[in-house]
Amino acid sequence: CDPLNATLLNGTAAHALDFDDMTQNMMGHPSVAILPGLLALGESRKSSGTQILEADLVGFETAGKIGRAVTYAHHDIGWHGTATLGIFAAVAAGAALMKMNAPKIATALSIAASLASGLRTNFGTMTKPLHAGHAGRNAIFALFAAEEGFSANEAAFEKKQGFFDVFLGPDTAKPDLALAAWFHPPEILDPGLCLKLYPSGAHTHPFIEMVRDLTSRHNLAASEIERIDVLSESSRHDHINRPNPKSALDAKWSIHYLIARTLTDGWPRLDHFTDTAVREPKIQELMRLVHASPDPALDQNWSDKYGGTVIITTSSGTHHRARIEHMIARGPDNPMRDEEVESKFFDCARRSLAQGQARELYDALNQLSDIPDITEIMKKTRSP
Amino acid sequence: CDPLNATLLNGTAAHALDFDDMTQNMMGHPSVAILPGLLALGESRKSSGTQILEADLVGFETAGKIGRAVTYAHHDIGWHGTATLGIFAAVAAGAALMKMNAPKIATALSIAASLASGLRTNFGTMTKPLHAGHAGRNAIFALFAAEEGFSANEAAFEKKQGFFDVFLGPDTAKPDLALAAWFHPPEILDPGLCLKLYPSGAHTHPFIEMVRDLTSRHNLAASEIERIDVLSESSRHDHINRPNPKSALDAKWSIHYLIARTLTDGWPRLDHFTDTAVREPKIQELMRLVHASPDPALDQNWSDKYGGTVIITTSSGTHHRARIEHMIARGPDNPMRDEEVESKFFDCARRSLAQGQARELYDALNQLSDIPDITEIMKKTRSP
Repeated sequence: CDPLNATLLNGTAAHALDFDDMTQNMMGHPSVAILPGLLALGESRKSSGTQILEADLVGFETAGKIGRAVTYAHHDIGWHGTATLGIFAAVAAGAALMKMNAPKIATALSIAASLASGLRTNFGTMTKPLHAGHAGRNAIFALFAAEEGFSANEAAFEKKQGFFDVFLGPDTAKPDLALAAWFHPPEILDPGLCLKLYPSGAHTHPFIEMVRDLTSRHNLAASEIERIDVLSESSRHDHINRPNPKSALDAKWSIHYLIARTLTDGWPRLDHFTDTAVREPKIQELMRLVHASPDPALDQNWSDKYGGTVIITTSSGTHHRARIEHMIARGPDNPMRDEEVESKFFDCARRSLAQGQARELYDALNQLSDIPDITEIMKKTRSP
Repeated sequence: CDPLNATLLNGTAAHALDFDDMTQNMMGHPSVAILPGLLALGESRKSSGTQILEADLVGFETAGKIGRAVTYAHHDIGWHGTATLGIFAAVAAGAALMKMNAPKIATALSIAASLASGLRTNFGTMTKPLHAGHAGRNAIFALFAAEEGFSANEAAFEKKQGFFDVFLGPDTAKPDLALAAWFHPPEILDPGLCLKLYPSGAHTHPFIEMVRDLTSRHNLAASEIERIDVLSESSRHDHINRPNPKSALDAKWSIHYLIARTLTDGWPRLDHFTDTAVREPKIQELMRLVHASPDPALDQNWSDKYGGTVIITTSSGTHHRARIEHMIARGPDNPMRDEEVESKFFDCARRSLAQGQARELYDALNQLSDIPDITEIMKKTRSP
């Protein structure tokens, strides 16, 4: 498989479960845009683990800083930042690995400005993960074209009718923020990388966390619970208010299903997203305890926040209340514990790899910075 | 070469000279977006010439009708219609050839909405022709994905945050115009296809036509001319006011060079765009007769028009004046004569093919609707 198609396929596959990492300023998923291309390039160059990690940090920094420049309004218009900003992150990461000179990097980024695409209107369909693969593939294409002497307008971002104007509206972006505070602090530390512990829509995570926290703190068994209220900003409410999920995909966004599953299994895992699992009688019963409502008080200035309120009412009439203002999965403030990361890794890896090979891969990834040649890792990812 | 890469390469090559056809409502170049993919698909299916022609008409209709829906404002924002609308034209054309059913066509168009890209800020660089190849390639990708069962949001155009909102601004498009008057009349007849007789920027064509018309009508030799004034709308003026073109590419937009060449050779041809041709002393001398100025009276409502005024002043002090309101190359009102089309064809074809093979290809293309299998034509396009 050539690097372009490898990037397209791996980027699309990596985002298909919507279980991959996120970061605030790019309003999307950085690693599915950056890493597939970086690994394809690294494999052909026999790059070291440290070279891959360093290049990935450059990509991550670029995603966040361009995200700051285009502001949340870029997302509100209907663009999918994973793709429309991810393409520049992937160009920057690849350029770092290829040790490209500055004029060629500028050209590659400007070519990429003409290839950037991806609409949120296709969320909830297979085209959403395609955005990630397509953006990564186009980034590698732009890098190869620039390397071979292709030309583009080096002012393609900041010029009138350039990327900032077209993707945000004339004179709306804050281009200075794209370069200010470059790696001071690094985006990877602030706002940081957020991992998903649950394979469900990101808006649902704060509510699952609150239910886990309240039931654990007050030692509540499912049998003692009479009712669980979920209050969220109106547009989020429309997404998660699915009291009768009909399919596994539907269940990924149903706050009723996700909370029921949290009560029975501690938290939702990949195996819980099958049509059969959704129909389990015990789950169907517990879903009826959950009541979702919009909270108009949250509608002001909450469009860029993931959070809301949970109230658990017990059979004895006690109310337990929790509130999260904003939480994107498990970020720097509440990082996933090592055993949670390991559990998630094997939950995913065992779908394609035997246990022994998955363990070898996990151990190798934990020593990535000591690996002299990334092809060693890539070999371990292939089914025999 | 697989159909995706064939389309990418042929679409980019076909637009590289900016000598290909145009149409008003798509604000761009239809055939370079539509035909390369159609020929690649047709070759693998051994389609007939008539099937290719019919599918091309469906693509052309789609380009124009979606162009009417997004209005000229789409272009003004900074999008390159050849790519951002051409991708849908290419999907529609390919779907017609593949005889896809309606739900799959809707899916392919909706996937394409997430792949549409191309910024005018990259005009004047190699990335401009890449837009055409990339759009055509992505159209074939969307068709293959839809055919294989990929999913997308079928309301991706008209929905809130869909293509129309994102590529034009919320509630600005006129979606009804995309379907109204479908083939009544056909876009190919009104506004029609416009061919370029001159391998120069489209804005320069009306001025070349006026100089040809005035010198022919008044029987003016170059030696009798004292001065030629060119008046145009301000933003066009900035493009064409290049009194000292330094390169062949520069010369394609220099109204001074183009008019000088018209005086010496009747009209500018491909061979005139070399750095050597630009430096010819006779041409350098004639360029000094040409004076370009902005005409503020044209700035109101002229942004979507190609035209202006030419005044030729003779040594005897006579002024000859011509005015064109709007002309895109040679369209239905002033079609290229058969011998002009033939001359242009051989001027282009002889760059890759021997005269005999070029003649065979020309004759075959003139009987395209009688060709049972398009692969016969494709074979004739290959250098031995």
